[in-house]
Amino acid sequence: MMMSRIADSQMYAHLWGTEELRSHFSEEGRLESWLTILAALAEAQAANAMIPARAAADIRSSAKVELLDLEYLADETKRSGHSMLGLIRALEQILPPDSAQFVYYGATVQDVTDTWMALTMKTMGGIAWRQLRSIEQSILDLATEHRNTAMAGRTHGQIGSPITFGFKLASWADEVRRHIHRLSDGRTRWLVGQLAGSVGTLGFFGRRGPAVRADFCNLLGLFDPGMSWTTSRDRVSEFCMVQAMIATTMARIGDEVYELARPELAEVGETTSDETVGSITMPHKQNPEGSEHLVTLGRIVRSQASLVLESSVQSHERDGRGWKAEWVAVPEVCLLTSSSLRIADELIRGLTVDAGSMTQNLARTRGYWASEWALVQLSRDLGKHRAQQLLQEALKQGWTGGLDFKEATMSHPDLSKHLDADKIDEVLRQPDTASAALMVDVVVARSNSERREEADQWP
Amino acid sequence: MMMSRIADSQMYAHLWGTEELRSHFSEEGRLESWLTILAALAEAQAANAMIPARAAADIRSSAKVELLDLEYLADETKRSGHSMLGLIRALEQILPPDSAQFVYYGATVQDVTDTWMALTMKTMGGIAWRQLRSIEQSILDLATEHRNTAMAGRTHGQIGSPITFGFKLASWADEVRRHIHRLSDGRTRWLVGQLAGSVGTLGFFGRRGPAVRADFCNLLGLFDPGMSWTTSRDRVSEFCMVQAMIATTMARIGDEVYELARPELAEVGETTSDETVGSITMPHKQNPEGSEHLVTLGRIVRSQASLVLESSVQSHERDGRGWKAEWVAVPEVCLLTSSSLRIADELIRGLTVDAGSMTQNLARTRGYWASEWALVQLSRDLGKHRAQQLLQEALKQGWTGGLDFKEATMSHPDLSKHLDADKIDEVLRQPDTASAALMVDVVVARSNSERREEADQWP
Amino acid sequence: MMMSRIADSQMYAHLWGTEELRSHFSEEGRLESWLTILAALAEAQAANAMIPARAAADIRSSAKVELLDLEYLADETKRSGHSMLGLIRALEQILPPDSAQFVYYGATVQDVTDTWMALTMKTMGGIAWRQLRSIEQSILDLATEHRNTAMAGRTHGQIGSPITFGFKLASWADEVRRHIHRLSDGRTRWLVGQLAGSVGTLGFFGRRGPAVRADFCNLLGLFDPGMSWTTSRDRVSEFCMVQAMIATTMARIGDEVYELARPELAEVGETTSDETVGSITMPHKQNPEGSEHLVTLGRIVRSQASLVLESSVQSHERDGRGWKAEWVAVPEVCLLTSSSLRIADELIRGLTVDAGSMTQNLARTRGYWASEWALVQLSRDLGKHRAQQLLQEALKQGWTGGLDFKEATMSHPDLSKHLDADKIDEVLRQPDTASAALMVDVVVARSNSERREEADQWP
Amino acid sequence: MMMSRIADSQMYAHLWGTEELRSHFSEEGRLESWLTILAALAEAQAANAMIPARAAADIRSSAKVELLDLEYLADETKRSGHSMLGLIRALEQILPPDSAQFVYYGATVQDVTDTWMALTMKTMGGIAWRQLRSIEQSILDLATEHRNTAMAGRTHGQIGSPITFGFKLASWADEVRRHIHRLSDGRTRWLVGQLAGSVGTLGFFGRRGPAVRADFCNLLGLFDPGMSWTTSRDRVSEFCMVQAMIATTMARIGDEVYELARPELAEVGETTSDETVGSITMPHKQNPEGSEHLVTLGRIVRSQASLVLESSVQSHERDGRGWKAEWVAVPEVCLLTSSSLRIADELIRGLTVDAGSMTQNLARTRGYWASEWALVQLSRDLGKHRAQQLLQEALKQGWTGGLDFKEATMSHPDLSKHLDADKIDEVLRQPDTASAALMVDVVVARSNSERREEADQWP
Repeated sequence: MMMSRIADSQMYAHLWGTEELRSHFSEEGRLESWLTILAALAEAQAANAMIPARAAADIRSSAKVELLDLEYLADETKRSGHSMLGLIRALEQILPPDSAQFVYYGATVQDVTDTWMALTMKTMGGIAWRQLRSIEQSILDLATEHRNTAMAGRTHGQIGSPITFGFKLASWADEVRRHIHRLSDGRTRWLVGQLAGSVGTLGFFGRRGPAVRADFCNLLGLFDPGMSWTTSRDRVSEFCMVQAMIATTMARIGDEVYELARPELAEVGETTSDETVGSITMPHKQNPEGSEHLVTLGRIVRSQASLVLESSVQSHERDGRGWKAEWVAVPEVCLLTSSSLRIADELIRGLTVDAGSMTQNLARTRGYWASEWALVQLSRDLGKHRAQQLLQEALKQGWTGGLDFKEATMSHPDLSKHLDADKIDEVLRQPDTASAALMVDVVVARSNSERREEADQWP
Repeated sequence: MMMSRIADSQMYAHLWGTEELRSHFSEEGRLESWLTILAALAEAQAANAMIPARAAADIRSSAKVELLDLEYLADETKRSGHSMLGLIRALEQILPPDSAQFVYYGATVQDVTDTWMALTMKTMGGIAWRQLRSIEQSILDLATEHRNTAMAGRTHGQIGSPITFGFKLASWADEVRRHIHRLSDGRTRWLVGQLAGSVGTLGFFGRRGPAVRADFCNLLGLFDPGMSWTTSRDRVSEFCMVQAMIATTMARIGDEVYELARPELAEVGETTSDETVGSITMPHKQNPEGSEHLVTLGRIVRSQASLVLESSVQSHERDGRGWKAEWVAVPEVCLLTSSSLRIADELIRGLTVDAGSMTQNLARTRGYWASEWALVQLSRDLGKHRAQQLLQEALKQGWTGGLDFKEATMSHPDLSKHLDADKIDEVLRQPDTASAALMVDVVVARSNSERREEADQWP
Repeated sequence: MMMSRIADSQMYAHLWGTEELRSHFSEEGRLESWLTILAALAEAQAANAMIPARAAADIRSSAKVELLDLEYLADETKRSGHSMLGLIRALEQILPPDSAQFVYYGATVQDVTDTWMALTMKTMGGIAWRQLRSIEQSILDLATEHRNTAMAGRTHGQIGSPITFGFKLASWADEVRRHIHRLSDGRTRWLVGQLAGSVGTLGFFGRRGPAVRADFCNLLGLFDPGMSWTTSRDRVSEFCMVQAMIATTMARIGDEVYELARPELAEVGETTSDETVGSITMPHKQNPEGSEHLVTLGRIVRSQASLVLESSVQSHERDGRGWKAEWVAVPEVCLLTSSSLRIADELIRGLTVDAGSMTQNLARTRGYWASEWALVQLSRDLGKHRAQQLLQEALKQGWTGGLDFKEATMSHPDLSKHLDADKIDEVLRQPDTASAALMVDVVVARSNSERREEADQWP
Repeated sequence: MMMSRIADSQMYAHLWGTEELRSHFSEEGRLESWLTILAALAEAQAANAMIPARAAADIRSSAKVELLDLEYLADETKRSGHSMLGLIRALEQILPPDSAQFVYYGATVQDVTDTWMALTMKTMGGIAWRQLRSIEQSILDLATEHRNTAMAGRTHGQIGSPITFGFKLASWADEVRRHIHRLSDGRTRWLVGQLAGSVGTLGFFGRRGPAVRADFCNLLGLFDPGMSWTTSRDRVSEFCMVQAMIATTMARIGDEVYELARPELAEVGETTSDETVGSITMPHKQNPEGSEHLVTLGRIVRSQASLVLESSVQSHERDGRGWKAEWVAVPEVCLLTSSSLRIADELIRGLTVDAGSMTQNLARTRGYWASEWALVQLSRDLGKHRAQQLLQEALKQGWTGGLDFKEATMSHPDLSKHLDADKIDEVLRQPDTASAALMVDVVVARSNSERREEADQWP
């Protein structure tokens, strides 16, 4: 079949999905999951005497994607206009006729696709759990290393008081940990099977419906929802929203690296291989491709997750108008988030940090960033309002006049008597980053304490 | 000040916000919260010997919106181009000069507005908790009453196998309960104060910063974040997403009522007062205004919540480009969700249910909805595939030929010998709703068991 | 390469794209366009003495996708991390070394991809033009046929005064025509090439840049922009927005059919083939699959078009953070809109109309829809306000009491004397659809007059 | 009435709307427009002998917002649950009883609100036209002034080949002009009145409907749509999309200024008044408040415009579920876009440009940006591929080794023999900006030629 999505092109696919997820979402991967679901259904039905045990065994052994005639399957799907009938007919081809009757017995399309959605959430949730914890570890290590590496704090794009690079990293780690909590919190809501039958009441199943559903879910490692959820889509939209929040954090990290890697700032950089070509026409260029792509991926994931939520006002007992949008959007959310996590993981592990540039950037703005420190000193003697006003005037004048911070303050008669020139030199040499390092410690300790208690795999 | 938003107009404001939230978000309400925050800050600073106790006491007693000159406050805000300076200057007017120095001492705009955001989440979360539980109760009562009220199940807008109205309601209750869980899960993430200072390191606060923050949060009934979160916006965006999911559930309920209230279906209706005028030119009309509005509100809330998430890729230590979008969007999310919950609460309590119409609508489609029941019977004798095929043919022909279900099946030689005419009559008279009622029981029991254990107020 | 997008799966691809566009967007199709662009560039450069004529001739004859080693191309793309270098290297393999130097000579990735974007807009714009005109024709024919077919007008989901089915259709045609206007209006803005070079100034091209660009655009059948537009994305976002508006109109048509096809309304239906299987478990069901899918497609297209607009705040002279989002979103907008147009075209041509049901549905609400007619009569004698009030009371009472419209009005002493029982019978038998047919005529005449003047192909 | 939207607060309203639009959208402003519409309707009806001339005259003279009892109006709106009835009843209070009968005679809510929407589009379109042309003029002047001011071109956030500041500005002007074209193109689609009556057929109007509508539209300076458009919302959504594109251009300009104003770049800056306070705790700070806010406004406008499009799949002959979302979103789109245009206008007129910093920033990256120039020279002798490869190696090594561009190239044996050291010095001193200035000329000439021909007011 001809691929028409650039995200699947041989040239670019590696940027828009990871191998493990791509195989989950490929036609073969998806059909394999669907067959597993059909086999579990048959076994649960056999266990509840709804179909012969023999049929269940036949279905289990035939439910293998490599046995199917995929051309025929696709043709029958198109011919019937029914999403699942092609697969059923392809299975009929390989099953003994007696057993063939019992495939997809009383089920509906959504039973298969929603249960597959739950398995997808299980796969993606597991990947997110693993990758977030790996990313967290890298950030914590880097934050510890740069606990005290001073750099400019920047607000509204302007240089303000100094922070440490570790402090900036700790803010990332803190956010990543909250996502780990979100994965824990949502798990029992998300990982539930769907066995609803035609309109949700398990009509074909007689009184055995709920028991079959319990066994069906159990066989697939999913929870039993207790209640059909064919038009109740909050589980799926919540999951996508959490993925979008994760991809957004990765985008925030990417955007930060992108900006700090500007040559005029040059505080951090991506590691690139020797084979990387930044620009053909401008051979000196090395572009922050990874961090840039994280921002792009974040945009698309948010858009697709919002589409899922937007599509969740569904009518009556089944409503394809919204439900089918999930078919496209949920895989996209997962593929792109997995790619985002992979790229962020590499980016952070390969991040180059230029502490020298960080120092220089503070110096280059002639020390004006020390204004908060001066304000503290002056507030004691002059009161804060007057101190603020005098400083603002003096610094505005000084800046325009080409003075540095020390000159600007010490040349001002009302300020100079309350400031100590040596202290200014000291502060400029050794910027005071206040509680930056303490907050690094809090975040590191908090994360480590939780990491020790929690499983490597999404529980 | 001239109102320019229709949602605040005297004519329509009641549809776009509730009184309790409107007063929270009014200029006075907001300033009152901000003053409370500034007073708590001063007290926390006094407790840590950062400012004189006297100053804190003065600030507490002056921090009353009715003492402020709001004109002056607004003028100074505009003149300085600083979001908070007008308020500080207005406070200076009423504070003793010595104490005036210590208002907003070392804080930054975002300390006030983000802490206010947390208080807003506390207020709105409490409203959501209360309203969701009230709505849940109404739905559970109605579901119990209509546990066995048969009606058409509808998929893709078409009539399918029968369900009960209680079953439909139980699906709403099930979804509402998951939102209650979400409010529980997110609480400790959301209800944290912000005390970051200029760039997040509490630079003005010396080493006392973390202790002041802990006291500050505690005084306001908020958790201590341990770490500044000025550009880490996942808390706010998660909260908004949960509100959007709640408003979406209300929209789903509204949309369902809107559709079932079509005169051709006439299964449910809204209660309207005698004074309600549906249409001036068409005096017979009674429009489902409440349910319609729920759909509208859901749309807008989703859009605003997505805007918050979209705005959360923020740079460095503060970034107004995204942050300021929250100033508009978060209040809108809360106001409209509160309105949505109020309207849904009334709608459900006033819902009229026409069980007769439900029966009639099943009858009107000549009983063809019983095809699943027939399929079960026939599958035993004929195998499911053949049964399905024969039934589909017979029913298609029968429908075109104007036959009813019994005629269509009993006139078909291959089917009639496997079906019992009396059984058909019985099924048409007494539709089999399979596990519908059992699922009602599961949902009701599950909710009641949790309700007994949980607090009336958001804990 | 493994496909991982369900929209490209062998089973479902036909629903998420049309063959002509799928081949445009396939790896081969895209590379073919890119090669055409590279060949045009070389020819324009040769014409301006920037490269040897021989090189241009070699490039033109080698620029064939079937000559390329696609594996090698993909590997080199990944190895270099450069979006275009794999292709350049694959071309080097097949070009004489002297000529190979002059491929992609001084160009940048965005020159190729943006010019391809323009060619894509040309292809898609042409498809939209053709399909919209075809759809318009079908609607006009149907509207003419049903110019006077009375049916219920419905507002807020409730039955109001009568309209004609032709009137409803004319509203669709009117909207479709405005899209045709939009395609005309935007054409010169959209169909421009991009030749910007490294940073937009055509740095590699010396003074010949603008002349080369003019020739380059001309060779490709595109307009010359006069100015580089690497971070000026309004062209692309406007195009996508227009496509989204088109897909939204198709969604409105789909949604309308979906609702009118409810069995309780049964006014229109989709034509399905005999092989179509609506539901396996409920063999009687025939689902409005096409109209349903139009709503789904509309949702996704809007979401992707909004993503393009959202991504168009781009920095400096090139900004991958937004630009790369277009790589995914623009093809998706086109593929899904083309699918939407194809499905709508078939849907409308196959639409079944049940005028009998339309009449019945008016009857079924006991004639209350005639209230506006009665209001007109009564307003003359009683004044409109009093007439409205009396009618509203009488009809509310009558409805509750099970009366029909005639009984409800004629049994009311204040109304009966101003109404003529025979007239009521006549109106109920022959609903007055006021200016409905006249508006059909206006729309049909207006469209036909423009159609006669305009080209079959997007000009 | 209590304001609850921060955008209307006395403190901040000036940032979220302009006075002229705020008065259009205020309760009084809106009611005034509605009254004008009702008066035009009455006059059109009188002209067509549908109501007495006397009634029309009375309505015209009473249709003044200052005569209305707004409390009563609001109370009756709430009591009746009807959007327009409060206004009708308030008018009844002041009209002679005979004439009062003929207010809103046969009209429906949407006739008033949609026609008001058209008048709103006329007002906002006129503002956009005026402001865009003013902004364009400022940009053209600045572009002419800085036609040759060299500065770094930046791609992917990295410094590339040089451009001129005028070239950057010309890209803005080019985009602004396309918006002016869009306003021209859409005008006849947008500025149409709505007179549809109950279900679109002008049922109450007898055969005079179309004539009344023509007169009604004419009296209000609007076009006659010929066809009702109650659920055909493409006009409104197109208008909002164009506004969103305009606000996005302003956001792109704002974002560019925000980034170039970073102190490490310091190439441009905003003019601030002496009274502006950037930061209280960091008295040296001057934040790019205006440019920052443009980005924020752009985000919100896009979100609201997308909401309008999302809401335009509407059912049957009226559908409040989508339509009412426009009531909130369209005013927001207009208010924020008007604010965006005002701020951008001021920003550009007050922009400070530091050509010295621009030069310095080129110098600071040690001249590596000249790599494209070198590539041109070397390609002649070495062939482009080899030249590219050698340069990339030499420059990577040179950069790491701390060399400047001249050292890095001249110390490389294979390169030095093909390069002229003096030429390098010259290029570094006098950067070659290729066709930058020529493109400025093209844009300026094109705009000026159109400006001379076009009206000052939106025609």
